[in-house]
Amino acid sequence: MKIKAGIVGAAGFAGAELTRLLLRHPSFELCAITSDALAGRALAEVYPAFAGASDLVFSKHDKSVLADLDVAFLAVPHTASLAMTPELIAAGTTVVDLSADYRLKDPAIYEKWYKVAHTSTDLLAKAAFGLPELTGDELASAAARRAAGEAVLVACAGCYPTATSLAAAPFLRAGLVEEGATVIVDALSGITGAGKKATERTHFCFANESVEAYGVGTHRHTPEISQILGLAPGRLVFTPHLVPMNRGLLSTVKMPLAKGADAPDPEELAAIQQRFYANSPLVEALPAGKLPKTASVAGTARAQVGVAYHAEARMIIAIGAIDNLGKGAAGQAVQCANIIFGLDQTEGLTSLAVGV
Amino acid sequence: MKIKAGIVGAAGFAGAELTRLLLRHPSFELCAITSDALAGRALAEVYPAFAGASDLVFSKHDKSVLADLDVAFLAVPHTASLAMTPELIAAGTTVVDLSADYRLKDPAIYEKWYKVAHTSTDLLAKAAFGLPELTGDELASAAARRAAGEAVLVACAGCYPTATSLAAAPFLRAGLVEEGATVIVDALSGITGAGKKATERTHFCFANESVEAYGVGTHRHTPEISQILGLAPGRLVFTPHLVPMNRGLLSTVKMPLAKGADAPDPEELAAIQQRFYANSPLVEALPAGKLPKTASVAGTARAQVGVAYHAEARMIIAIGAIDNLGKGAAGQAVQCANIIFGLDQTEGLTSLAVGV
Amino acid sequence: MKIKAGIVGAAGFAGAELTRLLLRHPSFELCAITSDALAGRALAEVYPAFAGASDLVFSKHDKSVLADLDVAFLAVPHTASLAMTPELIAAGTTVVDLSADYRLKDPAIYEKWYKVAHTSTDLLAKAAFGLPELTGDELASAAARRAAGEAVLVACAGCYPTATSLAAAPFLRAGLVEEGATVIVDALSGITGAGKKATERTHFCFANESVEAYGVGTHRHTPEISQILGLAPGRLVFTPHLVPMNRGLLSTVKMPLAKGADAPDPEELAAIQQRFYANSPLVEALPAGKLPKTASVAGTARAQVGVAYHAEARMIIAIGAIDNLGKGAAGQAVQCANIIFGLDQTEGLTSLAVGV
Amino acid sequence: MKIKAGIVGAAGFAGAELTRLLLRHPSFELCAITSDALAGRALAEVYPAFAGASDLVFSKHDKSVLADLDVAFLAVPHTASLAMTPELIAAGTTVVDLSADYRLKDPAIYEKWYKVAHTSTDLLAKAAFGLPELTGDELASAAARRAAGEAVLVACAGCYPTATSLAAAPFLRAGLVEEGATVIVDALSGITGAGKKATERTHFCFANESVEAYGVGTHRHTPEISQILGLAPGRLVFTPHLVPMNRGLLSTVKMPLAKGADAPDPEELAAIQQRFYANSPLVEALPAGKLPKTASVAGTARAQVGVAYHAEARMIIAIGAIDNLGKGAAGQAVQCANIIFGLDQTEGLTSLAVGV
Repeated sequence: MKIKAGIVGAAGFAGAELTRLLLRHPSFELCAITSDALAGRALAEVYPAFAGASDLVFSKHDKSVLADLDVAFLAVPHTASLAMTPELIAAGTTVVDLSADYRLKDPAIYEKWYKVAHTSTDLLAKAAFGLPELTGDELASAAARRAAGEAVLVACAGCYPTATSLAAAPFLRAGLVEEGATVIVDALSGITGAGKKATERTHFCFANESVEAYGVGTHRHTPEISQILGLAPGRLVFTPHLVPMNRGLLSTVKMPLAKGADAPDPEELAAIQQRFYANSPLVEALPAGKLPKTASVAGTARAQVGVAYHAEARMIIAIGAIDNLGKGAAGQAVQCANIIFGLDQTEGLTSLAVGV
Repeated sequence: MKIKAGIVGAAGFAGAELTRLLLRHPSFELCAITSDALAGRALAEVYPAFAGASDLVFSKHDKSVLADLDVAFLAVPHTASLAMTPELIAAGTTVVDLSADYRLKDPAIYEKWYKVAHTSTDLLAKAAFGLPELTGDELASAAARRAAGEAVLVACAGCYPTATSLAAAPFLRAGLVEEGATVIVDALSGITGAGKKATERTHFCFANESVEAYGVGTHRHTPEISQILGLAPGRLVFTPHLVPMNRGLLSTVKMPLAKGADAPDPEELAAIQQRFYANSPLVEALPAGKLPKTASVAGTARAQVGVAYHAEARMIIAIGAIDNLGKGAAGQAVQCANIIFGLDQTEGLTSLAVGV
Repeated sequence: MKIKAGIVGAAGFAGAELTRLLLRHPSFELCAITSDALAGRALAEVYPAFAGASDLVFSKHDKSVLADLDVAFLAVPHTASLAMTPELIAAGTTVVDLSADYRLKDPAIYEKWYKVAHTSTDLLAKAAFGLPELTGDELASAAARRAAGEAVLVACAGCYPTATSLAAAPFLRAGLVEEGATVIVDALSGITGAGKKATERTHFCFANESVEAYGVGTHRHTPEISQILGLAPGRLVFTPHLVPMNRGLLSTVKMPLAKGADAPDPEELAAIQQRFYANSPLVEALPAGKLPKTASVAGTARAQVGVAYHAEARMIIAIGAIDNLGKGAAGQAVQCANIIFGLDQTEGLTSLAVGV
Repeated sequence: MKIKAGIVGAAGFAGAELTRLLLRHPSFELCAITSDALAGRALAEVYPAFAGASDLVFSKHDKSVLADLDVAFLAVPHTASLAMTPELIAAGTTVVDLSADYRLKDPAIYEKWYKVAHTSTDLLAKAAFGLPELTGDELASAAARRAAGEAVLVACAGCYPTATSLAAAPFLRAGLVEEGATVIVDALSGITGAGKKATERTHFCFANESVEAYGVGTHRHTPEISQILGLAPGRLVFTPHLVPMNRGLLSTVKMPLAKGADAPDPEELAAIQQRFYANSPLVEALPAGKLPKTASVAGTARAQVGVAYHAEARMIIAIGAIDNLGKGAAGQAVQCANIIFGLDQTEGLTSLAVGV
C-alpha cells in the first residue's frame, strides 16, 4: 500500500519537479495534481517530458480531489497556503508546504515582509521547519506526531535560505563567527527561480548573456535566513542575482571570524563542515581547497558546501551549491515527506547530477 | 548477486554518464572504471558530482582489472575496441561497445570511412547491433547465447543514427518512402557530442551563441544510418550541426512519399509511428500536430519522435529527439545490457527529463 | 542636413536594433520612435542599453509624429503596414517596410499564406524588394525615383529568406540546380526570431538547453523564399528550428545538381559564390572547405556563405549565416535605406561581429 | 595621417577585441598584429568574423614589426610586458599595456602577488594608470608628455578593478564609507574572462549551466582594487565567480556607511554617483531604483553603475556592470589611447550594446 500523495499547484516549476520525483518514488503514489489554470489538461500535454510516463490530468484545487490523500504538497504562492492548509490539516491530510506561509516563526515578521496578516498562527506554532540537516529535531517530532495519527505540517525552507544556511550554519553553531557582526550573503540563482510565468525578466533574450542583482536589501528570503542562522535584524545583507542557466543556486557567505578565535587553517574549516554533515547523506562537504559548483548537484536533491578563509580580513567564506528546484524546493519537500512518513530520507532522491 | 560491470574509457562524457547510470542500477554493480590518462585519480575528484556517492578510483586499462567482470562497457575511440574486444570475449566477458568498431556489418565500408583495416571480422559477424527498438531480434539472439554461457558482443548505435533511425524507420519499413529517392537528414547536437577534449570547437566562448554545420557529406555516421535504414550509398545526405547546449540531439528526416502512395493525412502518419513504438517503453511517438524537443528527453534514455507531412512536395518529415549521451550513448548501452542479461529493458533507466 | 528618420513599432527587437543603428548613423537623424504600447515611456527606461545615449521617448503611431519624416521604417506586424503605408507614401514619406505586407509580388499568394486580403495592390506593384545583393535593380530603380522626388516603398526581405537566398542564389542563377527538383532548406534561428513577447516559447527555461523544429511545411517565409529563388510551389521544403542563442540564423540548403552538369569540385562551387558576391561588401563568400558560423556575423549587417558538395548524392549544400536582427532585419533595412537615399550601402553598418 | 598602431598578443580575446575596435577607428591605423603562436596565419582564418574586413596576417613579436609604430597595445600575459615595454619606450613607441605588469605602484606588492621581481621600476614610477574616470590626472599628464614628444606608458586597469572601482569610488571619495571597515566585493564574470586557452574550465559543457566561485581571497586583482580605492590590506574581501555567458562583468560592492554619517536615502546615493560621472561619457549612473545588468553594456566600452542602500545594516551596495573585454580591457585601452593622443576619449567607441 503506497502513501497517497497529491500536488496542489503542480503547474509551476516546483510543482513539475515534484511531479517528476513522485511519479518515480517507491513509496508514494501520485494521485492528484491540481492547477486552476490548467484544469482539464493532460500533464503530458503541458510538460511533454511526461509523455508516455503518466496519464495524470490537472484538476482544480478542489476538496473532493484532495479528500483521500495522505499527504498534500503545496507548491503555491504565499497566502494560498494560508487559505488551504488549515482545512487540509483538519481533514487529516498531512501538508508539506513549499510556500513561505509557515516558515517564519514570528507572525509579526511574516506580516512585515509579506504585507498580509497571518491568519493561522495556531498551525504556525506547530509547523516543523523543513531543512532536515538543520531542523532535524522539529521534523523528528512531527514524524512522531504523524505516526501517532496526527496530520502534521512541514514548512519547507526556501531556495536561498537552504543553500546559504547549509554553508554557514556549521561555523555559526561552532561559535566561530563574531557575535553581532554583519553577515554578507551574495547568491546566484538560475532562471527557474524567477518562476514559470512568462515575463520580460524570464524572456530568453533578456535573461541570456546577462547577469543582474535584484531585490537588493528587500528580498523576502532575508528574514528566513536570519531566523535559521539566528541573526538579529540588520545583521544580514543579502544580495541575490539572476544568472543565465536553468537550474542551480550558489550562495557565498562572508562571516567575520570571532575576535577571540585563533585564525583557523583551511583544513580545520573544511573539517568543521565535514563533521557537521557526516551523517547527512544529501549534503557533501568538500575537502579544503575545493569549492562547489552548481552543475555538481543540478537535477538532484543534493547539496555541496565548501569553505575558504581570508586571513588578512579574518573572514570565513562559506559557499553552498544546490539545485534551486531540487534541494531548494521539490527535492527537499520529498526529503521532508520521507522523514515524516518514517522512510529513509533519501528514498526516491538517489539520482546523481546529470550535468557533466 | 549483482552482475559485475566495468567501464573502459570512463573518463569521457559517455563514460561518465555510464558511471552515473550504473552506480544507481539495481542489478549491476560497477566494479571498475578505467582511464589510462586518469589512472589513480578518484572519480569524485575528476567529476565532483560523484562526491559522496562513490569511492571509485580510475585504474589503467588492464587485464587484471577486467578479469572478473561479467560485462565490460567500452566507451573508447574507434580502433581501441578492435584492440580490446577479442581478448575480452575470449576471456568470457560480455562486451557492450559504444565505439563504432563493430557497427558496420560490411568491413569494407568500415575501412572506407575509418581508414583502417577491420581486424576482427569474425566477431563482427556475430555482433548484435544495439538499437533495441529496431534490432530486437539481433539482441534477443545474443541474449539467448549469453544465457547459454557465451560471452557476446553488442555494438551500440551512434547518437545521430539513433535519433534519425527511430524517427524514419516506421515509414521506410511501411514502404511509404519512394524507393531509390534521396533521404535528407539535418541534425542538431549539443556540445557534449563534440567530446570532453578541450579544443577551440568546445571552448565555451566559441560554441556559445553560435551555430554551425560540420562534417557535411563526410560524417562517419552516414554509413551507419544508411545501414540501419537500408539506404543505398548516395541515397543519404546528412548534415550535422553543433548547437549551444550541453545535451540533446534532434534529427529532421525528409523522405519523399512513394510515388504510388495516396497522400497520407497527418493523423495516419502519426499513427504509424505510434503503432510502431507501441511496445517500446523508451520511445514515445507524439500525436499528430506535436513535434519533439530535446529538453523533453534530456538526461534520460528515452526518445520522442514526431512527424509532419508536406502535401505539395509529397514529403514526409520525421523528427526524432534524444539525449545524445542518454539514448544516444550510455542510456542505450544500459538498455542493451539489460536485454542481454535478461532484465527488463528499462531497469535503471526510469528517470524522467530534468529539463522543465 | 541629415535625413529625418522615424521608426514605427520601435518597441520590438527589430525596432530596437534599428534604433541602435540609426542613433549612430552618420546621415540619418532618428527623430521619432513609436509604439502604442509604450507611448510616453523613455527609450532608455525600456531598453537600458540606451541610457545616456538617447533621450528619445516612445510616442503613439500618429500622423503628426510622422509628418515631417523623410523616411519611416516600419517594424510592425503584417497587416499593420498595409494599414499605414499608403498614407505615408501619399504624404511623401519614403517607407522601408520590415513587415511581410509588400514582399510577395502576387497578392493571391499573400492572401493564401496570410489569410487576409491585400488592400494595397497598386503600391505592391511598385514596391522594391529589399535584398540588395539579389534585387539591386529594383532598389536602383526605386532610388532613382526617390531622387526624382517620389516617395518610394521598399519591402525588406525576411530573415530566413535572406540567409537562404544568399546561400543558394548563385547556384540557381548559374543553372547548376536540377530544374523542377525539390530544394530542401533547414534553418536554425536564435530566439530573438520568436519576438519580444513573453510567451512559453520564449521563456528562458523552455528555450534554453533545447532545440525543436516548428512551423514545418507551414512557415510563412516559404512563399517568399520560393519567389526570390524562382521555385515553383511544392519545390521547396522548409523546416525552421529554434536554437538557444539570442541572435543568429543559419540556413542549410540542399539542391540537386542539374542532371546534365559535370560534377563540380568544391573549389569551383566556392568560386561561384565568391564571384557572385565580389562586389557585395556585406556578404562574404568563404573559401572551399570553410563553412560559416553565426557568431561571425552576430550584431552586424553582414552575411557569410559557404558551400559543400555531396558527390555520391550529386547534391549542392549551400549554407548562409546572418544575424536575424542584422542582415535579417534592421541591418538590411538600413542598407536598403542607404541605397534609396544615394549613400554608400555600408554607411552606419561597418561594425564587425562582437562574437569572438 | 593616421596614428600607426600595433597589437602585441593579438591572438587572445582582448587582442581580438582590440583588433575589432582599431580596424574601425577613425584615427588609428592598425599596422601590425603579433602572436608567436599564430605567426604567418591570416587574421580572418583564425577569427572568421574578420573575413572580408581585413587582410592582416599575424607576425612574430619582432622588433622590426614594431619599429615604426606610434603606439603598441600589449595584450600579453604578465611578465611579457616587463620584458618588452622598456625597449618599446626606448624606441619611442608609446605603450598601452593591458597586462598587470605596471598597474601596481608598489613593486613589493607586485612581487608579493605575482611571485616575480619587478625589473622595470623606473618605468613603473612614470606609468599612468588607465582608468580614465578615476585617474584622469595621470592620463592628462601622460598625454602632455606624449604631446611633447615623449613615448609614454599606460597601464590599463583590469576588468574586476574597473567594474568594482567605478561602482564604489564615488562613495569612498565622498567619505561616506566607514574608515577601516572591510569592503566586500562579489563579482561575476563571463567566460571570456577565463581566456582563450581551451581548458576544462573553459569547456562549454563544464562552464555552461553552472556557476562557481574561484580564487577566493587569492585573486590577483585584489591589490589592484585596494590601490584604486585606497583600501589598506585586509580591508578588501574579493570573491570572483564565473557565470555562463561570453561577455559581461558585474561587481557588487558592500560598504559600511561611515559611523557618523546620516542615513542617506536612495536618491541621494544615486545622485552622488550621477554627479561623479556627469562628465564621463562612457559611464552611466542609473537613477535610484535601477540597477545595471551586463547586457546593457555588452560589446561596448561603456559602464553602467547603480546603488542600493540597506538601512538596517547601514550598508551601501554599489553595483557596476561592464563588458570585461570592452570597458574591462580593449575598450578601455582604446579610450586611454584616445586621451594620450589628444583625441576625443570616445572616438571609435560609440557603439551601443548589441544585447537586447
